Order: sequence, then structure tokens, then C-alpha cells
Amino acid sequence: MTARPANVHQASLLRLLRDLGPQSRVALGDHVELSRSKLAVEIDRLLETGLVVQDGLAASRGGRRSHNVRIAPSLRFLGVDIGATSVDAAVTNAELEVLGHLSEPLDVREGPVAVFERVLALAAKLRESGLAEHFDGAGIGLPGPVRFPEGVPVAPPIMPGWDGFPVREALSQELGCPVLVDNDVNLMALGEQQAGVARSARDFLCVKVGTGIGCGIVVGGAVHRGVTGSAGDIGHIQVDPNGPQCACGNVGCLEAHFGGHALVRDATALAESGRSAELAARLEAAGRLIPQDVAAAAGAGDTAALEMIRAGGTRTGQVIAGLVSFFNPGLVVIGGGLTGLGHTLLASIRTQVYRQSLPLATGNLPIVLGELGQIAGVVGATRLISDHVFSPA
Amino acid sequence: MTARPANVHQASLLRLLRDLGPQSRVALGDHVELSRSKLAVEIDRLLETGLVVQDGLAASRGGRRSHNVRIAPSLRFLGVDIGATSVDAAVTNAELEVLGHLSEPLDVREGPVAVFERVLALAAKLRESGLAEHFDGAGIGLPGPVRFPEGVPVAPPIMPGWDGFPVREALSQELGCPVLVDNDVNLMALGEQQAGVARSARDFLCVKVGTGIGCGIVVGGAVHRGVTGSAGDIGHIQVDPNGPQCACGNVGCLEAHFGGHALVRDATALAESGRSAELAARLEAAGRLIPQDVAAAAGAGDTAALEMIRAGGTRTGQVIAGLVSFFNPGLVVIGGGLTGLGHTLLASIRTQVYRQSLPLATGNLPIVLGELGQIAGVVGATRLISDHVFSPA
Repeated sequence: MTARPANVHQASLLRLLRDLGPQSRVALGDHVELSRSKLAVEIDRLLETGLVVQDGLAASRGGRRSHNVRIAPSLRFLGVDIGATSVDAAVTNAELEVLGHLSEPLDVREGPVAVFERVLALAAKLRESGLAEHFDGAGIGLPGPVRFPEGVPVAPPIMPGWDGFPVREALSQELGCPVLVDNDVNLMALGEQQAGVARSARDFLCVKVGTGIGCGIVVGGAVHRGVTGSAGDIGHIQVDPNGPQCACGNVGCLEAHFGGHALVRDATALAESGRSAELAARLEAAGRLIPQDVAAAAGAGDTAALEMIRAGGTRTGQVIAGLVSFFNPGLVVIGGGLTGLGHTLLASIRTQVYRQSLPLATGNLPIVLGELGQIAGVVGATRLISDHVFSPA
Repeated sequence: MTARPANVHQASLLRLLRDLGPQSRVALGDHVELSRSKLAVEIDRLLETGLVVQDGLAASRGGRRSHNVRIAPSLRFLGVDIGATSVDAAVTNAELEVLGHLSEPLDVREGPVAVFERVLALAAKLRESGLAEHFDGAGIGLPGPVRFPEGVPVAPPIMPGWDGFPVREALSQELGCPVLVDNDVNLMALGEQQAGVARSARDFLCVKVGTGIGCGIVVGGAVHRGVTGSAGDIGHIQVDPNGPQCACGNVGCLEAHFGGHALVRDATALAESGRSAELAARLEAAGRLIPQDVAAAAGAGDTAALEMIRAGGTRTGQVIAGLVSFFNPGLVVIGGGLTGLGHTLLASIRTQVYRQSLPLATGNLPIVLGELGQIAGVVGATRLISDHVFSPA
């Protein structure tokens, strides 16, 4: 068992060392509200637990040079991001630097038992690579709503067989370390906050546009999960009462217009009807289309593909515009697989939000792409579990 | 100057006494994380400041009977709720019981100087009534976005002449007590949380349907105001890209479909075109229509008026449905002047939200009318300023 901090002071020292890297005792004192002697006591106790180690002499700030301390370099966190069609796993040190990252296709509909076998195999592979001997904690992302305290998926629409499965408990037993489970979009938001474009943001939205469309909501620095864990589920907000039928039973939902499934559906229709020569050629060559085909066709100047991306961005922007008026965030981050559609998508989203939200809410509002790409989720997962491990037991 | 608590323990004792009423020392001990001796010290210090007084012997819980303490009964807070077309002012004791309440028509477009004269006259009237000798703090609500820390309205669309006016500073000087200023919808949410239907809610939305439409957002027990103070401004969320022109310059905003102005516009059209005999009669009698005419016509069974209310409720519900999917609240409270339209309005809102939001988000979601009616805002205003006065200086 990894030691845990004994009190909130030790917890905040550990998080500081995680986020700032090695520090002198003096420099740490600038960040905490502790007397010098009390700080020395807490650091000494952390040294005794092995959670923190000495790390050479710090640069002098006048007077006797003080020792640097750093978080134990042997600590390892596992981050797993289970998507609808793929899984990412990464191992980080306690400063949440990614030491190794694996990614594989996966169908989440195979159910928890089959998926966990794959996850455990990935974890074993990361251990066997020599990057980790063990894990001090693991964060797991799932593509659906999660009852966070228990780490259990709740009625996840695209995950048959997962409803109520005790993911946290099962994986904690298998991995032999503390585990937390969250919605993949919340983890993307935490990842961008930890090491990406949202580093200095306290109130922001992180919209993931991939197979589905969801939104991570950060309020005052913390993820807002809602009373049943379904906050941010914006894919089924209605954008057009006369729009297409959605898999959820309603009509005109955002995901019925855009997202991975809708994109493939519309691209196939364009190819088959001859309105896009690029897409038709790709369909004939591969037998089926994937979202990357739309990006490639648009990159080759195919106007039908470009128009499709533009329309999807406008629909997405329409929903985000409402959320911006409602929530008044300081930043909107766009991430997820479909950001591969590139600048056309971002431009359409921006145009719609800036046109339609209140000027007061958009005056200083950046709308930007995420910085971490595919690893946002796994970084967020290790951030989540490290917050837990670095809090009093 | 009213004394202020010296530390967070005293602050939380004062808030407990505000919310629970007179308590024995023993009972107070059940609510705070303080040793018995430390609790006694803090209560004694509060007795010395005069913020708390002895209040007879408490019922015995075994052993020596302990003295009740209560918050000083001489403390007085002023709550002012400035709306687009009216102003409410109330005086409360420190337990936030309304001792007196005045309400007058007022046009906020007259600008801050004229409006403040009226507010100060109301405050004077409340003092002269013998209900208060002085005020220990005042909370002020405005019908527009407010930069909360400074208490300054920011680009409020329906308040010409108010942009950037130092409301907090000016009124604090005139009233000679601490003042906080907030958006009226946030105060309605705080009022319902303090003494109304949201007493036990930590995460809820409070939608005010009046001249305009806005939403108070409470996250983890605290009001979410957004980075520029415009959070909850849902009146300009687009509900129909082909809808009517809105005063804000866009088309199809919620307020272009519903709210006080839209209701009067549509009612007048119904009356003039002969589609509603009830409204036509009222228009002829009074020369103009007000929202109450629509309520009266609907009450008399006028189908055109009923249909108008139903359509407005559906549009409002359409917006709330999206917010419920996004925010996953534990409760939605509907308040404001147009709740006078009665059950038809609430039923239409509910139907739309339950039909259109995700089942996971609506499973246990009550959508209810506010309990405090016209005094929700002033009660929220006194809650706001009492939180401030009952926090360490």
C-alpha cells in the first residue's frame, strides 16, 4: 500500500510538488500558509513516509542553501481512457509526466469482462516494459455517465452490459491499488487543466466531439458532475425540432446531426448519391467510410465534405452558444477525435458562438482546440487518481 | 459599525444561529467541529461583541441545564429587489424573518440617481415605521448582469444609464452599512434556498419568468455567477432560428417568444385580430394589456390565451430541457411575475423538460414553483448580505 498524507497540509504539499516539480523548502513556503517550523515538520514527516525525497541542494536565495525536495520518483499512476471504439492506457510518474502510452481499437459494446481483460493486458504490458513495477493508483474513463462516488456506470446508452457494473471495485481488486472511475469527457477536461490549454482556467467548458458529443464542466477548479453524474451530456440537446431521428428516441438532437455516427451516415449518403467524388472513391476503395475520410476529402478541397463539416460545426456552435450564455465560462476547449476535421470545424463553432451568445459572455472568451490530443483523457485520469492518493486517508 | 466575527468558527456559529434560531450551547456543539471548551470560548467572545445574546434556559438534555443563546435580536438587514417595473424593499431581523415589506411600481430606465432616491425613501419609511433603527447591512438586486466583487452593473440591456455605476459604493455610503449587489435572479435563488422550496438543495436552477427570463445557478450550495457576472442569462438562448426578431439584435431568442414583453405583444395581437374576445374586451376597457390580463383571460377559459401560455411554457421548457441535460440539477424552481399564469404554464414547462431531457437527468428531478413569491428576491438579498456580515472582517 502506498502511504497517504496524514493531514491537509501534507496533501497540499504533495499536490504542489506534483504540479511544480522539485522545490526548495523555502520556495514551498511561498505557496502554503504554514509557519516555517510547521512546514519543516510536515516535510520531515513526508520524507519519513517515503512520499517525498531529498533532491540535492537548491539554488541559494541568500543564507544557508536549502535542500530541494521532490515527490518520490518511484511513484506510478495508470491512466486508462475507454472510448466507444478505442482504449488508451498510459503510465505516469507522480508529476504526471507520461512515461509510456498504448492505444488500441476496442469495442466497448463487448461488455465489461472482455474490456477489462484488455485493460489489464495493457497494464501488464506497461509494467513489463520496465516503466512501472506497480501502480500507486489508477484512473479510468468511460464513455457514459458514471455515479462517481461508487465508480459505477449508470444507464450508459452506448455501453450495453455495463449498467451498474462495479468498475471501481473490480479494477481496484485486479490492479491492487486505489481506482477512481469517471466519465471520459470529465477526464479530458481535467487533463487539459493539468497539462494543457486550460492550465490557468478555473471556470471552463471542455467539449469533446468524437463518436458522441459531451461536455466537461469545471466550476471553481473542480469538475461539476451533477446529481446523477450525467452533467455535460449535451449530445441530446435538441437543435432542430424538425431534425432527423436520434437513437435516443427523440428527434433533432445534436448527435443526430453531428458526431462520428452522423458524419459517417452523411458521408456515405454523399458518396452514394454522387455528390462527392472524393468520398465516392474512398467508399469504393475501402467498402466503408470513417470520419478520417471526411477530413481527407475536405483537405483535398471536396466542397460537399467541407460543407458537411461546416454544418456540423454550426450545429455544435448553436448548442455551445446557449451553454456560454447560461454558464458564462472563461474558456471553451474543443477536443475529441473529430477535431481532426481541422480549422473548418473550429471556425464554424466560433462563428456561431460569437454570433449568437451574449456579447458580455463572449467579450473575452477564447474558444480553442485542446493541446493534449489523444492523451488528454489518460492525463486527466492520472490527475484524478493522484488528487485522491494525495489527500488524507 | 456592527461588530464582525473574529474567525471562521464565530462566523459559522452566527450563520447557524441565523438559520436554526435560538439554540442551547449543547445543541450548537452538535453542528460544529469544535471541542466543548473551544466552543464555550467562541460563544463567550460573541456574547462580548453583542452579536449574540443569552436567551433563557434551554430544555434539559440530562445534567445541568444550559443557557440558550440567540443572535442579537436588534440586528436589522435591508433587502431591496429592483425589477424592471417595480421595486420591493423589506427589513428583516438577523434570522431573516421579514418584519416589514414595501412594494412600488418603478421604471428602472429612470437611471440610478432617480431610482436610488426611491430606494432611500423606502429605507427611510421602513426605519420610520419603528421596525429598524438602523441597518447592519443591505443586499440589493438589479435586473441585469452585475460585476459582483465591485457591485457594479455591466452593460445591462434594459437599464440605460446604469452601465458601470458604482451601486455598491454609492448605496453603502448613503445607508451607512455594508452593501452587496447582485443580479435579481441570483437573489431569487438564494431566497428560495434560505426560506423557500430549495431549502435542502445544493445544486439547483431557479428560473425567473417575468418581464425578462433569467436563471439563478446554485452549485454546491453557492451561486455560480460566471466570469463576467452574466451566468444564467438564458433569455437570449435561441429557440427557433426562424423565430421573431429580438430586441438584442438576434432572432428567435427565448425572450422574443415569451416573457412579459412578448406576452403583451402577442395578447394585443390576439385582441386586435378578434381571435380572443376576452382580451379584446380588456384591451378596450383599459386601453392597453398587461400580463395579468392574459392570466385572467385564461382563467375565464379563453382558448387563445391558454394556447399562448402553453406555447410560452413549451418554449421555456425547451431551453430548460437543454440546461437540465447540461447541468444535471437536483431541482428546478420556477418563479417570477409570470408564474401568475398558473398551472398551465408549469404543466407546459414540465411536459417539455420531461419529454426532451435525458431520462437519467430527469428521473428524480422535481420542477416546482417557488414558495416565496414576491419576497423571494428581498429574502435572498438579506441572505446575501448576512453571509457577508457574518464572515470574518
